[in-house]
Amino acid sequence: MEHRVTANDVAKLAGVSQSSVSRVYFEGASVSKRTREKVLGAAKELGYRPNEFARSLITNQTKIIGLVMKGIQNPFYPQVLKQFTTAFKKLGYSILFVYTNNDEIQKEDIEILLNYNVAGVIITDASLSLKVTEDFKGYRIPLVLFNRKIDNQQFYSVCCNNLDASEKVAEYLIEKGCSDVVYIAGNANTSTSREREKGFTSILKKNNIDYTKYSSDYTYKGGYKTAQKVIAGKKIPAGFFVANDIMALGVLDALRESSIAIPTETKVVGFDNIEMASWPTYNLTTWEQPITEMVKQTVKYLMAEIVDYTGFTENVEIDGGLIVRKTT
Amino acid sequence: MEHRVTANDVAKLAGVSQSSVSRVYFEGASVSKRTREKVLGAAKELGYRPNEFARSLITNQTKIIGLVMKGIQNPFYPQVLKQFTTAFKKLGYSILFVYTNNDEIQKEDIEILLNYNVAGVIITDASLSLKVTEDFKGYRIPLVLFNRKIDNQQFYSVCCNNLDASEKVAEYLIEKGCSDVVYIAGNANTSTSREREKGFTSILKKNNIDYTKYSSDYTYKGGYKTAQKVIAGKKIPAGFFVANDIMALGVLDALRESSIAIPTETKVVGFDNIEMASWPTYNLTTWEQPITEMVKQTVKYLMAEIVDYTGFTENVEIDGGLIVRKTT
Repeated sequence: MEHRVTANDVAKLAGVSQSSVSRVYFEGASVSKRTREKVLGAAKELGYRPNEFARSLITNQTKIIGLVMKGIQNPFYPQVLKQFTTAFKKLGYSILFVYTNNDEIQKEDIEILLNYNVAGVIITDASLSLKVTEDFKGYRIPLVLFNRKIDNQQFYSVCCNNLDASEKVAEYLIEKGCSDVVYIAGNANTSTSREREKGFTSILKKNNIDYTKYSSDYTYKGGYKTAQKVIAGKKIPAGFFVANDIMALGVLDALRESSIAIPTETKVVGFDNIEMASWPTYNLTTWEQPITEMVKQTVKYLMAEIVDYTGFTENVEIDGGLIVRKTT
Repeated sequence: MEHRVTANDVAKLAGVSQSSVSRVYFEGASVSKRTREKVLGAAKELGYRPNEFARSLITNQTKIIGLVMKGIQNPFYPQVLKQFTTAFKKLGYSILFVYTNNDEIQKEDIEILLNYNVAGVIITDASLSLKVTEDFKGYRIPLVLFNRKIDNQQFYSVCCNNLDASEKVAEYLIEKGCSDVVYIAGNANTSTSREREKGFTSILKKNNIDYTKYSSDYTYKGGYKTAQKVIAGKKIPAGFFVANDIMALGVLDALRESSIAIPTETKVVGFDNIEMASWPTYNLTTWEQPITEMVKQTVKYLMAEIVDYTGFTENVEIDGGLIVRKTT
């Protein structure tokens, strides 16, 4: 078995110690001119290439951002991944992609990020326990919750202003004459679904509008099946607020299959403004999440903390806007 | 500014050299019992954690796989990303995600992969130049083209059997009575689009079936606009073969907007079998790409080459299957 050229091979050929080879390549380490020349000569001969990780031994920091994601099949998240990758590339940082298929981030996912000594971490649609908090704080690794937040503000979080947005959705449906509405929730343990419900229902209560809550799971199938349950009930509501777009598309398909006319018999509003919401088949009225601004804010915080770690936390909320299309 | 604990901090507290600290943590390096105890004691006191990259100095290899992707907005690719991440996690490998917004991989993308000394590289829907070939071969980094191939077989590639698949699609449309058909191509510089065209048209020619080729770009909008052009022409063809599903959904929406009945007035077949193809609104007949098998084969090759690099290349083609739904 052949192997790649290592610092050890270079050291042998140059007739110096391995640590001399390291010193040549690592910033901030001193080495004599003669040794440097020997090492560079041997490295050239062998085709040796020092790596980023070698450099990280000095600073104990890499130029890698860990990005943890669960709902990769919801088109909202590939869009987020694309924007983060593009923004960090400009700054010389790369993305270590961690897919988690559990609601809560697993210990093994955290181990990967810690072992690779990431410069920062972004957690999108997965929750995390107190233990995990301590791990990251202990190693002074800056962390952002993206599109999620935790009540006690243990982390810096960047979200859309979900409360305000869903209040405005409720006001809009009332303006449109809806006298009874259904809220289809996403996963119950997510801050996004809870806040969208809270904002939405607060306005409904003020206006004495009847509403029913159905629990679902932020997937197309979940939205589709939940709408079928609503349809099987005694009465089609005048309006639906669905906690994300991909579920709303499922709702539209289920309503269409039952020949329920939209927007005359019922109205549907989603949340996210994924690309598919604008497709002529769906033409979904939705609340646009300000992804670009959310990504910008996340990158800004992480870069500042990477340079000078403070552990500072805040819940940042950015306004989006209602996109009115044909389903209302 | 405070900083993270480094090997140097541990060395100072333990009263040993930095290279002694390294030797304690790097496999294969000898160190006295007394030094080891001093180092481990100091490390515990300071909360020092050695990193994966430090280990990589010995082998000059990381447990990172570089994954280069362009069409992240085509639902086929998030599915691929998910499967690769899951498969490699089981083997202790992580994914460095490289998004490229150019058809051809840029030098900067390659630099990232080389600087991080990835153990292997997977390139999905981007093309690469001869120069890039040499870079990876020079550093003995195994590379797989996934869902793409290059004629001269300079790389190991894993694809669906596109030629055979599109021949079968042609035979199927002929069986269904189509006497004239349209092929909507993806990006012209992709092996997938060229092979799907080749297989499809070879059978049409044999059977004296009229066909027209339209060029498009593997996006929903591309499919939608191309179908509008076809509709604006003198005659709606009896069948469409669209080079991927996301374009086929655009074709279906354009046909529907023009009130063209499917499958009676015309039939549509896609390629990929993305999740949305099965949604009741689309119910698209399509060729299923065997993603699971393609991922398995890619992982198998990369792991073998990581252990023992041979530079061996082959074009591996895996059979998929026709999924008949309501658009034919």
